[in-house]
Amino acid sequence: MNPDLASERQTASFSVEKLTAQLDGGAEHTRIRRAVVEAIECDPVFSRENQYFQSQNERYEAAVRKAVHLQKKMHEMGWTEDGPEFKYIYRALSGDIAFLLHRIFMRSISVLGSDKQIAKWIPLATQYQLIGSYAQTELGHGTYLQGLETTAVFDITTQEFILNTPKISAMKWWPGDMGRSATHTVVFAQLYIHGKCYGVHPFIVQIRSLQDHSLCPGITAGDIGPKMNFEHVDNGYLMLQNVRVPRENMLNKFCEVQPDGTYARWGSQKINYFTMTTVRISLISDEVIIPLMKACTIAIRYSVVRRQSKLKPGEEEAKILDYQTQQEKLLPQLAAAYAFHFINNYLQELFDKVYREIQGKKFDTLPELHAFSSGFKAMVTQYCTSAVAICLQACGGHGYSLLSGLPSLYTKIVASCIYEGENTILLLQTARFLIKCFMAASAGQPVPPSVTYLAAVKPGKCPAKNKLDFLSPDVYAEAYQHMAARLISSTAAKLQDLIQSGVKKTDAWNQCTVQLVQAAKAHCHYITVKNFAETVEKLETKAGIQKIMKHLCDLFALHGIFSNGGVFLHDGYVSGAQMDMVTASYLDLLAVIRKDAVPLVDAFDFTDKSLNSALGSYDGQVYQRLYEWAQKSPTNKQMSPAYERYLKPLLHNTLSKL
Amino acid sequence: MNPDLASERQTASFSVEKLTAQLDGGAEHTRIRRAVVEAIECDPVFSRENQYFQSQNERYEAAVRKAVHLQKKMHEMGWTEDGPEFKYIYRALSGDIAFLLHRIFMRSISVLGSDKQIAKWIPLATQYQLIGSYAQTELGHGTYLQGLETTAVFDITTQEFILNTPKISAMKWWPGDMGRSATHTVVFAQLYIHGKCYGVHPFIVQIRSLQDHSLCPGITAGDIGPKMNFEHVDNGYLMLQNVRVPRENMLNKFCEVQPDGTYARWGSQKINYFTMTTVRISLISDEVIIPLMKACTIAIRYSVVRRQSKLKPGEEEAKILDYQTQQEKLLPQLAAAYAFHFINNYLQELFDKVYREIQGKKFDTLPELHAFSSGFKAMVTQYCTSAVAICLQACGGHGYSLLSGLPSLYTKIVASCIYEGENTILLLQTARFLIKCFMAASAGQPVPPSVTYLAAVKPGKCPAKNKLDFLSPDVYAEAYQHMAARLISSTAAKLQDLIQSGVKKTDAWNQCTVQLVQAAKAHCHYITVKNFAETVEKLETKAGIQKIMKHLCDLFALHGIFSNGGVFLHDGYVSGAQMDMVTASYLDLLAVIRKDAVPLVDAFDFTDKSLNSALGSYDGQVYQRLYEWAQKSPTNKQMSPAYERYLKPLLHNTLSKL
Repeated sequence: MNPDLASERQTASFSVEKLTAQLDGGAEHTRIRRAVVEAIECDPVFSRENQYFQSQNERYEAAVRKAVHLQKKMHEMGWTEDGPEFKYIYRALSGDIAFLLHRIFMRSISVLGSDKQIAKWIPLATQYQLIGSYAQTELGHGTYLQGLETTAVFDITTQEFILNTPKISAMKWWPGDMGRSATHTVVFAQLYIHGKCYGVHPFIVQIRSLQDHSLCPGITAGDIGPKMNFEHVDNGYLMLQNVRVPRENMLNKFCEVQPDGTYARWGSQKINYFTMTTVRISLISDEVIIPLMKACTIAIRYSVVRRQSKLKPGEEEAKILDYQTQQEKLLPQLAAAYAFHFINNYLQELFDKVYREIQGKKFDTLPELHAFSSGFKAMVTQYCTSAVAICLQACGGHGYSLLSGLPSLYTKIVASCIYEGENTILLLQTARFLIKCFMAASAGQPVPPSVTYLAAVKPGKCPAKNKLDFLSPDVYAEAYQHMAARLISSTAAKLQDLIQSGVKKTDAWNQCTVQLVQAAKAHCHYITVKNFAETVEKLETKAGIQKIMKHLCDLFALHGIFSNGGVFLHDGYVSGAQMDMVTASYLDLLAVIRKDAVPLVDAFDFTDKSLNSALGSYDGQVYQRLYEWAQKSPTNKQMSPAYERYLKPLLHNTLSKL
Repeated sequence: MNPDLASERQTASFSVEKLTAQLDGGAEHTRIRRAVVEAIECDPVFSRENQYFQSQNERYEAAVRKAVHLQKKMHEMGWTEDGPEFKYIYRALSGDIAFLLHRIFMRSISVLGSDKQIAKWIPLATQYQLIGSYAQTELGHGTYLQGLETTAVFDITTQEFILNTPKISAMKWWPGDMGRSATHTVVFAQLYIHGKCYGVHPFIVQIRSLQDHSLCPGITAGDIGPKMNFEHVDNGYLMLQNVRVPRENMLNKFCEVQPDGTYARWGSQKINYFTMTTVRISLISDEVIIPLMKACTIAIRYSVVRRQSKLKPGEEEAKILDYQTQQEKLLPQLAAAYAFHFINNYLQELFDKVYREIQGKKFDTLPELHAFSSGFKAMVTQYCTSAVAICLQACGGHGYSLLSGLPSLYTKIVASCIYEGENTILLLQTARFLIKCFMAASAGQPVPPSVTYLAAVKPGKCPAKNKLDFLSPDVYAEAYQHMAARLISSTAAKLQDLIQSGVKKTDAWNQCTVQLVQAAKAHCHYITVKNFAETVEKLETKAGIQKIMKHLCDLFALHGIFSNGGVFLHDGYVSGAQMDMVTASYLDLLAVIRKDAVPLVDAFDFTDKSLNSALGSYDGQVYQRLYEWAQKSPTNKQMSPAYERYLKPLLHNTLSKL
């Protein structure tokens, strides 16, 4: 154990084990999670040790191997899809596994298919008699589903749909598991009956032979090539040329084409909303918050092992975490990881509540959940992506080595800003909800509880008199609330002004979008701060933990005010003198939290294997590990052919013969 | 040609060709640059088409091949190292070439070696009788050179130095060209004579045989493994165990160990500063501004080809650049690319001036140049790194494909924040200079012209009365100046207060570093705005160009105020009402510049080969190119072995046998 790292652990102001249990939702969950992690990590098939050396082909092959092996493993361990272990498997594998889209294939059939379709397809998929994918996005269309160009024309004579991708931009592009693995996929296409378009519908299409895996007639498919990360996934392309599927292959829980070509629709489509919402909420934890927690763990452990330069002449070189600038880079990211962990709990609770209501056929709270999940997906992915980039750069050159683990965390998390709804589009959906609520609230109509604060927008001044006042959650939460309400109301006012001055509604909306995005972010930021503060309140009985969580909550809130001073100062709610108090308290907090920085990342409880980082290991043997690992690189496996081909002739005086 | 892209070019408000010549520094330079690019790009050896598919080993081998071939090419073309073509070669190759450290090896001998040493080594290096590297950074030390742990002990009996890396953290780590290519290197080590340490000195050490390239006795060396980018460079590690080099191998222009062990030092060491400064300034253009220009070209061309969703119901889908949010992502980055191009010219002029003075043995202006080059290196690399990330995310899913070119631009540019001086350290050096100048100016002493503004810090109010006033460079430059001066003076005051209250000077400095960094950035931002405005002034005779450059200058300045509102509002210099005017003018400018967005990136004059991007090509055939390129990926070359090994047994019902 590196002594510089060991000493950090001796002075923890709280029980790391208790905080871990708190984060897991109880000690029993911690126990189950550790058992899953242990079982996965001791199995060499799931090893990620060579990951940073592997080509895209090798990564894909390993991911398929792991996916197949996982079926066996689950059987052996007695884990089931609805057991308590299941949710920890993906985390334990760090998502490095194939057939994730196979699950989406199954989910879409379960949600959009009739009972008959479910009875036919789900058992086949469950037993891997086929491998499914989900073909929605096209080369030319992502966000705007109505614009999809793939067609499905009903042929009444054969009772089939004829599917086509009529132009290059209609080609399906990006679906995971489709480039090389899938035998079947759900294709989203514009339905045409007797020349009339009925909009986008889902169709089950077989794309590869179950015998020899060759492409089916009319199918062109392949891998879309190299990406910034996700090398283990065979994101694919798919062209369809007069591909025929039987009438029964249109998923028809909500609508059907009858044999005579009559189109029938029934039931509520609102539930589709709910599916998107489910995915957005579920990705926040696994794909975004956990990677940030890993990045913080790596960067903070490294920052107490790395010594560089001197704080005082004559002394030993200082741990880089003792520099204020390094604290200011890393500790706000650590606070954000906790803030987002708690907001994720909040979203899960909201989700569970809405889910129960939906089962009772009540859809009232769905718009709020949709607006929240959209806004938080956007805000959390963007924040965490920036945070991981900061962690990477804060580790200097060593952070730039793939062996630090940080580059892969970054190149993977950045995709979360794009997939499952591009962030700007999502924030504008949140903004639309907020503007609507603001108008309703202003007109005295009822609004959901989370936005009642919009009803009471009023001028005012922050009451803080000294820097300690800014350590009061009431004071800063009020400042955030005021700021969010002001941004929403002023943007609503601009929108109204434009429309009243004769600008068309759609143009007016476009001219306000920069400010609408800002307002939606402000709302999410406010809710995150408020929720963090309320969570800390509830921790009261647990000594040590509540205190350090309170510091982190303060830091998260004050960092936001310090970094976005303009929106707080704008109407004088916070004065310049108060901003100096914020700065002073903020900088003071850095020094306080710095003392517990290592215990705070230890509490995330990542194993060395899950971090897969030469900088972040629990024992802090950074340099030894970098050296030993680098030696295993394929670049060191043999003398490069470049020597014989180019260097030798060069050194042996080729130049003179040029 | 994609018609949506073609139409953008028909309405240019200025001559693209004239702007290109302006950027190049005259039409003659444009001609020479194009000739170099043409010669390089029509030579298949220099092709980068397969780059996104290649492994680290393949990238390295290609880079060596190119470096060797370049020697031949230069000979053929009659290009010389001091000819006008030379500076365009690296740009034309997009830096994708080996032996760049060989050049640093030569430069360090030229600068630090005696005439005798130069006469011996430079001809050998010029003719590639050896391949050089530059071994300074260690596993445990980068920024803090005094902390290097490699030792060189003078052995008076044999007249040799004995070099050792006594512990693992002393291992040389990162030097380019060293992992696999170099035969020689300049090793920086602590010089010991008779047990006394004389600090860090440079030694020429042979590390590989000139006959068979095997490692020399006592040498352990290899490649440090995979990195976020720079796969073409064999960054290496090096351990030395009792490696002996003759006394003559210590570079001794400024100091010498005489045969009897006497240590002699002469001449000014300030020139060493100058070498670092040279490197920092030279990287700003090639490694930072050009990549940003490329990213803007790719993202903006794509944004007029990509249509998604509708601005108005019933209309055609809109070009995504017509959305205000997309403009707000990309156009400020475009303005920044121009702003930094012009600040780079400014730095070059300052550099040339200082260089002339140094040749006349005058060193007065060196501290200013050092402070400037440090601060601008940090500010420009950080800004451009964020800007490239924004361009990437603004292209949605397609930006995430390596074939867009954007991921590689990002993963490469992010390294510029770390190498040649970590940015935070550099900004603190600038801050130290600024604080010193502020104290001097306050005491009525003379200061360099660029910082005389610090002498006149006074309270005041921005005079703008309406949004058009914020299109006056006097108004916004004054706001920036006021803000920078306030941040510097208030931080200086905090520093003084702490020291006067009894805090030790070094502790006080550390407690101010977050604000010192902010102040240094503010200074650089101010100078960039001021220089942009002054450059625009000088363009007066050239119609069309001056007008659009004025818009970009306004946008760059107002974007900075809009995004960092807090520092302008803090003391009331800018009021909340004025901030609304800034926002209004800023948003208006987006719509204005949007019209010329494509011509403004066309003026950067990148060929399709230099962009190496499926999204950014001149003809805008995005989807066709993505599809054709993806088909060439190794992931599509054959049926994956994963099918036979894993998928077939799975599909053929292995599960039931589990």
